[in-house]
Amino acid sequence: MDKILRIDMGADGGPKTSSVPLGQYAGFGGRAMTSAIVSKEVPPLCHPLGAENKLVIAPGLLSGTASAMSGRISVGGKSPLTGGIKEANSGGQPSQVLARLGYAAIVLEGKPKNNDLYKVFINKDGVKISVDNSLKMLPNYDLVAKMKAEYGEKICCISIGPAGEMKMASATVAFTDMELRPTRHAGRGGLGAVMGSKGVKVIVLDDTIVRGSTPGSPAVTMQMRVPKDPEKFKDANKRFVDGLKSHAVTGQGLPAYGTNVLTNILNEVGGYPTYNFKQGRFDGASKISGETQAETEKTRGANPTHGCHRGCVIQCSGTYNDKDGHYLTKQPEYETVWAHGGNCGISDLDKIAMMDFLDDNYGIDTIEMGATIAVAMDAGLAKFGDADAAIQMIHEVGKGTHLGRILGSGAAVTGKAYGVERVPVVKGQAMPAYDPRAVQGIGVTYATSPMGADHTAGYAVAQNVLKVGGDVNALKPEGQVELSRNLQIATAAIDSTGMCLFIAFAVLDQPDTFQALLDLLNSFYGMNLTADGVTDLGKKVLTMERDFNAKAGFTAAQDRLPEYFKSEKFAPHNVTFGVKDEDLDKVFNW
Amino acid sequence: MDKILRIDMGADGGPKTSSVPLGQYAGFGGRAMTSAIVSKEVPPLCHPLGAENKLVIAPGLLSGTASAMSGRISVGGKSPLTGGIKEANSGGQPSQVLARLGYAAIVLEGKPKNNDLYKVFINKDGVKISVDNSLKMLPNYDLVAKMKAEYGEKICCISIGPAGEMKMASATVAFTDMELRPTRHAGRGGLGAVMGSKGVKVIVLDDTIVRGSTPGSPAVTMQMRVPKDPEKFKDANKRFVDGLKSHAVTGQGLPAYGTNVLTNILNEVGGYPTYNFKQGRFDGASKISGETQAETEKTRGANPTHGCHRGCVIQCSGTYNDKDGHYLTKQPEYETVWAHGGNCGISDLDKIAMMDFLDDNYGIDTIEMGATIAVAMDAGLAKFGDADAAIQMIHEVGKGTHLGRILGSGAAVTGKAYGVERVPVVKGQAMPAYDPRAVQGIGVTYATSPMGADHTAGYAVAQNVLKVGGDVNALKPEGQVELSRNLQIATAAIDSTGMCLFIAFAVLDQPDTFQALLDLLNSFYGMNLTADGVTDLGKKVLTMERDFNAKAGFTAAQDRLPEYFKSEKFAPHNVTFGVKDEDLDKVFNW
Repeated sequence: MDKILRIDMGADGGPKTSSVPLGQYAGFGGRAMTSAIVSKEVPPLCHPLGAENKLVIAPGLLSGTASAMSGRISVGGKSPLTGGIKEANSGGQPSQVLARLGYAAIVLEGKPKNNDLYKVFINKDGVKISVDNSLKMLPNYDLVAKMKAEYGEKICCISIGPAGEMKMASATVAFTDMELRPTRHAGRGGLGAVMGSKGVKVIVLDDTIVRGSTPGSPAVTMQMRVPKDPEKFKDANKRFVDGLKSHAVTGQGLPAYGTNVLTNILNEVGGYPTYNFKQGRFDGASKISGETQAETEKTRGANPTHGCHRGCVIQCSGTYNDKDGHYLTKQPEYETVWAHGGNCGISDLDKIAMMDFLDDNYGIDTIEMGATIAVAMDAGLAKFGDADAAIQMIHEVGKGTHLGRILGSGAAVTGKAYGVERVPVVKGQAMPAYDPRAVQGIGVTYATSPMGADHTAGYAVAQNVLKVGGDVNALKPEGQVELSRNLQIATAAIDSTGMCLFIAFAVLDQPDTFQALLDLLNSFYGMNLTADGVTDLGKKVLTMERDFNAKAGFTAAQDRLPEYFKSEKFAPHNVTFGVKDEDLDKVFNW
Repeated sequence: MDKILRIDMGADGGPKTSSVPLGQYAGFGGRAMTSAIVSKEVPPLCHPLGAENKLVIAPGLLSGTASAMSGRISVGGKSPLTGGIKEANSGGQPSQVLARLGYAAIVLEGKPKNNDLYKVFINKDGVKISVDNSLKMLPNYDLVAKMKAEYGEKICCISIGPAGEMKMASATVAFTDMELRPTRHAGRGGLGAVMGSKGVKVIVLDDTIVRGSTPGSPAVTMQMRVPKDPEKFKDANKRFVDGLKSHAVTGQGLPAYGTNVLTNILNEVGGYPTYNFKQGRFDGASKISGETQAETEKTRGANPTHGCHRGCVIQCSGTYNDKDGHYLTKQPEYETVWAHGGNCGISDLDKIAMMDFLDDNYGIDTIEMGATIAVAMDAGLAKFGDADAAIQMIHEVGKGTHLGRILGSGAAVTGKAYGVERVPVVKGQAMPAYDPRAVQGIGVTYATSPMGADHTAGYAVAQNVLKVGGDVNALKPEGQVELSRNLQIATAAIDSTGMCLFIAFAVLDQPDTFQALLDLLNSFYGMNLTADGVTDLGKKVLTMERDFNAKAGFTAAQDRLPEYFKSEKFAPHNVTFGVKDEDLDKVFNW
């Protein structure tokens, strides 16, 4: 992982690739890498779909190693949705494979001069880019099937669906999972549109070294990256895995029910945004809970406990079969089930799973899509609870009809087009599945994260609701600013390692597990990172991001929730968002 | 003009009116009044369509007097298009009538709790507000006809069309002209949507004092407002009118050909934005020039020389008849002819006139609509030059189809929905009919005006192209910042007087005419305003506006043209916009 692959899509005579040393970016991985490149190389006032924007795809510092949980990948650029800097990250196989192929980042630059669509193939022999207009408007599943037929089973793919080709602000970058399905997505902020603007449909990765000599005989793939101190690394990894397995959240809750274990929990505490953020409890919650979902999956022969990438020991992923027992989609995540479920008043798990599939296939962010459908329902385009109408809306996006163009542009544009006042966005990005009035810590993160409303940027739900890593009253403003600040710093650091963010539950609660994480990094790179060093890295990343946003025109005025969260009481607790503006402005005082 | 009419549309039990003294707003008129009320009373971060926004309608300081040219009216609020403060102004009859009825402003506040549509009737006896859902979705012409049938001939109307009711960001507030036609519009910034959000369809004004006793016998209307020093006022007005009549622009060019006299001029200098700002000259210019238009109007029995309000001596307005000699629309303005003409590659004057009529009727800003159609053409929705497709797009807006919802949201949203990179907007508002590369002074105004891209905010075309009030090379950055600064200050002051901005040509060139303007104000109000006082007023207005925008989250980053104006050369002069960012930031240093 000692080089950066730069692909200039706007070069005269067609795309031009160059592998360059890390240079000033040495020591960065994941989000630190994407945010460093974007903040240094992208003009903050450029058009997100223009030649000056860049799409950066970077594995984490530990990706491609034998470390558990290290398969996350970061995608960065100037966001078409927020207009600010964006890092969206994803699971799936490409992070490990790209790291093993030696690339610390792929940077797509420039803009093609015509409308050709390109595929990029990367293996041990280098990079090959070719025009392939037969891929135009292929949904992700069909695209991956085509790549499999062309390049074999040992590949993994980074791709965009029709939404990305149409440059929609809710378009994702898709990553294939262990079964070579395009189920993992860098979803937020429309980075799929940036990839679309570069004319790149798919990046196929293959880390095969030796192919089987007879048909069907196994191929040999690249080895794990080798640590500086293999023994210490192995020991640290063992302690790390033990720590994850012994914690209730990462060892029990997530494996058994996946992220959707949260539906019942959030509904119980009254923080589950229902009917476009109008109330905190949903009558139909039990029908779409993680428990019900896992039971349904088991009954239909699907697998509720499964990892999204090799090396995962939490196994919060899974598969979802239809009534006939056929694969329909991966196990929908809590955020997806909420966005298309309670937030739209829908309690039919099969219909929600269908929407999950359609979002993955068209390449649309499930959170933005669900939030947008709810806004459209408030605009009168469909009734809350009408699952078939919601499904149809996703098809409109995938087909690029005029209605689809509006919906595919996200909740903020949809609200503007239909004159809806109650639109739950910050910096133009839709809020996820926690109401900021009933979970005030996450409200601070929504308001202040450089990413726009993003739960993963500083998951205060842990301390506010799950009581992991601390206990801060969810309904009161006290302590939320400090909580969000610390979480945003820690998250920026973790997102740079390639580690799944869910390790945070164990790392925050168990000092030994945190030490094991430090030991993994130190034994791999031969360095002496301390807790303070992790904090410094997180602060450095956030500072780069906020600096970019400031130059793009963001001020404290953008670090705010929409006004109605301060005035409209939220049932059942009848609370409003109580964190004062002047306190929000202290989040980044350190 | 000693009171403000406040109408709380959100009061319990229905709208509640109160007439209150001017208080802190004494001495303000027009734009100074709207911007003062908005900046003091509207929370900068509120939703433009929410209860906290206000719609302020204010005649100028000299409106309702015997002074020539004093019939302009200002409309203000937080803009649904830009998200910043907005003043849009209009001609027509209501300014004079409202001033004579004694109101320095109407302020629509709050938001109705249901979907009823209201009409407001104001006469000497007071204010009457009633629900009238029969008006729903009436286009402006039908609406005014209905009001005429109901209230008689002696009224004038302030209204919204379907676009305003649908809360579209390009919706106008319409004002009737001398013939009681809804042809004058406070067009920019979507203030019609704010009026729509308040549930007010129309405000009918009637300044009749005594009605004729038999059918058809004339009614007596209110007298002009009386100056403190009637003799001096009369003398000043005579000198003022003489000055206007003796200047080439206000005495000859504008009366003969209307504002569309500019088509040939801008085309000749290569500053006429053609095909969505791709080049500076249009092959079809001569077919849609003011000269051709005036000739067409004369041939068909229409009137090319006409005022938009009583008291106008410039007479740049007119009427446009169809081929059969029937009234089609008012004489389309230069901006409208350009927006729907050269900018869309259309050179059919009748089709352009039809679009002008449709915009007026649906209540859509002609500049935003034309710029949006051109962006849609760039997106491939129609071919440049296809007038029927352009007409159909306006119908889509008026009908509120999904496509219409996109287009009605303006050029920025349309660009976003269809992934178009070249979108000529500043602060979300489309640029008018002067390319900022070939007329660099207007580029400074587009970039820095608190209103978003707005030619009227500091009309540097005068010095850059017309060589009125000075001579600054249009193609070079030198001197443009100072020019735009002085014009923006002067404009903010003139927009507060109720005077038509076109007086500026004579006022800038002829010291005597400027003195006559001061004398008009001084003799009317018994004050001693000097040139410095005018400058101070303009600075005060701009400062209030910029302060609001700063609190709404605007920074120097929003005071910029889209990047492509700095990199894409503009034919025939092959120039880019050359004013440096750091110089743009000096516009408001005084």
